[in-house]
Amino acid sequence: MASSDLKVSISEKTVSSVEAGFPPSKHHGADIRFHGVVRDEEDGRIITGIDYSCYPDMAGGELDKIVATMLDENPEHLVAIHHRIGFVAAGEASLLIRVQTAHSQAAFDISREYLRRIKKTVPIWKKPIFAKNPS
Amino acid sequence: MASSDLKVSISEKTVSSVEAGFPPSKHHGADIRFHGVVRDEEDGRIITGIDYSCYPDMAGGELDKIVATMLDENPEHLVAIHHRIGFVAAGEASLLIRVQTAHSQAAFDISREYLRRIKKTVPIWKKPIFAKNPS
Repeated sequence: MASSDLKVSISEKTVSSVEAGFPPSKHHGADIRFHGVVRDEEDGRIITGIDYSCYPDMAGGELDKIVATMLDENPEHLVAIHHRIGFVAAGEASLLIRVQTAHSQAAFDISREYLRRIKKTVPIWKKPIFAKNPS
Repeated sequence: MASSDLKVSISEKTVSSVEAGFPPSKHHGADIRFHGVVRDEEDGRIITGIDYSCYPDMAGGELDKIVATMLDENPEHLVAIHHRIGFVAAGEASLLIRVQTAHSQAAFDISREYLRRIKKTVPIWKKPIFAKNPS
């Protein structure tokens, strides 16, 4: 199944630009957008951001699998997932999970489960870029 | 405490225009935006939208109370809530709850709890506008 059918993308596009293109729905009363944001510290040290990299086919294939399984388990939701790669500055989002359901409780449960599965199995590498010490 | 301090608003502004002004944060790795969207049916009948109304001081005061209590219970989060009033067409959002936390699990728990409390106690009236039968 192609990534495009499942609304999964991995690219250097910002999360906000992807989110801007989201179509509305009259059938889904709950629409959750989870943003995973780069924080400015890693192991107690200040960072300027994170450089994300992956083999797009491998990471995209794993995302597709997660979406296919989740839709099989909960057929009544819509989903869109975007993982930004390349350098993402602290304060910007690297991950977007959008879930739409008819009612709100399912949207919270399903979004949380997507995040859990993505964190667990999608092979995307993170290289923190440490702030230079003042010289 | 004034509503503005607590980032609570009730007005005819669209959810997307409020969301566009959200400041980023380098300290919060999770940023959830819950949109409550108007669906196109009510009790099995097609509607074109919902007309929301309230006494702003009363509804705003109740929202302020919810936020103050939640911040007391979970001091480590940021929140912004917007309820749109007036006519909201089916497919558009009437409620926005934004919660930012350092880590993701708390963001899901806290957003869900805001929604539960808002639904339970904030006095905003909903008048569904039914689609006209074809004549």
